[in-house]
Amino acid sequence: MRKMLIFAVAVLCISCWSAGESFVKFPAADKKGGMPLNEALNNRRTLRKYSTANLSVKQIGDLLWAAYGVNRADGKLTAPTAANRQEIRIYFLTKEGAFAYCPVKHAYKKIDSADLRKYAGVFKAPLYVVIAADLNKAANRHYAVMDTGYVSQNIYLHCASAGLGTCAIGSFTRIREGNKGKVLRDGLKLPAHIEIFLTHSVGVPAK
Amino acid sequence: MRKMLIFAVAVLCISCWSAGESFVKFPAADKKGGMPLNEALNNRRTLRKYSTANLSVKQIGDLLWAAYGVNRADGKLTAPTAANRQEIRIYFLTKEGAFAYCPVKHAYKKIDSADLRKYAGVFKAPLYVVIAADLNKAANRHYAVMDTGYVSQNIYLHCASAGLGTCAIGSFTRIREGNKGKVLRDGLKLPAHIEIFLTHSVGVPAK
Repeated sequence: MRKMLIFAVAVLCISCWSAGESFVKFPAADKKGGMPLNEALNNRRTLRKYSTANLSVKQIGDLLWAAYGVNRADGKLTAPTAANRQEIRIYFLTKEGAFAYCPVKHAYKKIDSADLRKYAGVFKAPLYVVIAADLNKAANRHYAVMDTGYVSQNIYLHCASAGLGTCAIGSFTRIREGNKGKVLRDGLKLPAHIEIFLTHSVGVPAK
Repeated sequence: MRKMLIFAVAVLCISCWSAGESFVKFPAADKKGGMPLNEALNNRRTLRKYSTANLSVKQIGDLLWAAYGVNRADGKLTAPTAANRQEIRIYFLTKEGAFAYCPVKHAYKKIDSADLRKYAGVFKAPLYVVIAADLNKAANRHYAVMDTGYVSQNIYLHCASAGLGTCAIGSFTRIREGNKGKVLRDGLKLPAHIEIFLTHSVGVPAK
């Protein structure tokens, strides 16, 4: 009976990858508005300098829904994944701590209260988004890397549409001698099979 | 003098990767319209069944601009590439042959008159788009694969916005014993350093 209960809890929680802690719902995402797509594509660019303005919870939620949110009743997402493995994991970092995003609940959960932003990139930004992949779920590493690109482009386009600036950062968090990737991994409490492939600095463009 | 001339011709042509053949301009791409971004994200999905309707040259051009078109005076693109290497190469296949897309000119050039679509995927589609990368230009293979994802997501979103259906196909063209990837590579006359990472079937959704 105890085993069955553990199994049931595990199944209930598997869509958001950990039990125990409580999720906080984001406000419902705007699934209709935004800039016309072609205008967003035309405005798509990399921006590295941001004002000090913090983003609201609604702004962060809308960004994460665009990046990797559920867009269908069957749980499929704004970004495809190879063989529908849905291996991508999204985290975000603010001055208040490190958080995990749950697409199924459109909700977030605090992982750590430390400000880990400086371990995610060199730009001063109110928000960092971390795109990682569960390599146990992915079709393989090649497709996990490609699937990261889909999510990153959603972030670029959402930022173009929402008046935000962003920069995708590919190398900063790689685990190498002396770099900061291990601190970020440890702060996010990532198991070995979850690998960070990109971070995104995000903020209101500096005047 | 002769060497200088050859060098000058090479420089003039390098942005579109081959000399000799003439490019045909696409109609100017619509850089303002389309569906609101969030609605396109909400409609983003994979579709594998298409009507037999062919796409117009304007439809194909608009799709390719969204995928990997120039959106700034400095030649930067709707999709980022790691370290701005701009290593992605776009080809397309119709019943009339195989063509290369030149983002700088927003133009296309016929490579071969053969219908290569059946070597790009199993779905009956009026159009296939081929996303390849020049591995001599790419930051490295890892980023070439990731950059492919950005372009593919642009195709998904454009199709969602423009009433088209599409499916990204990752494995079909891989060079393996007995598969069709070599026929497609040979038809596109790709040198060894250009590798196909994805194809996209594209068409009007079947009723």
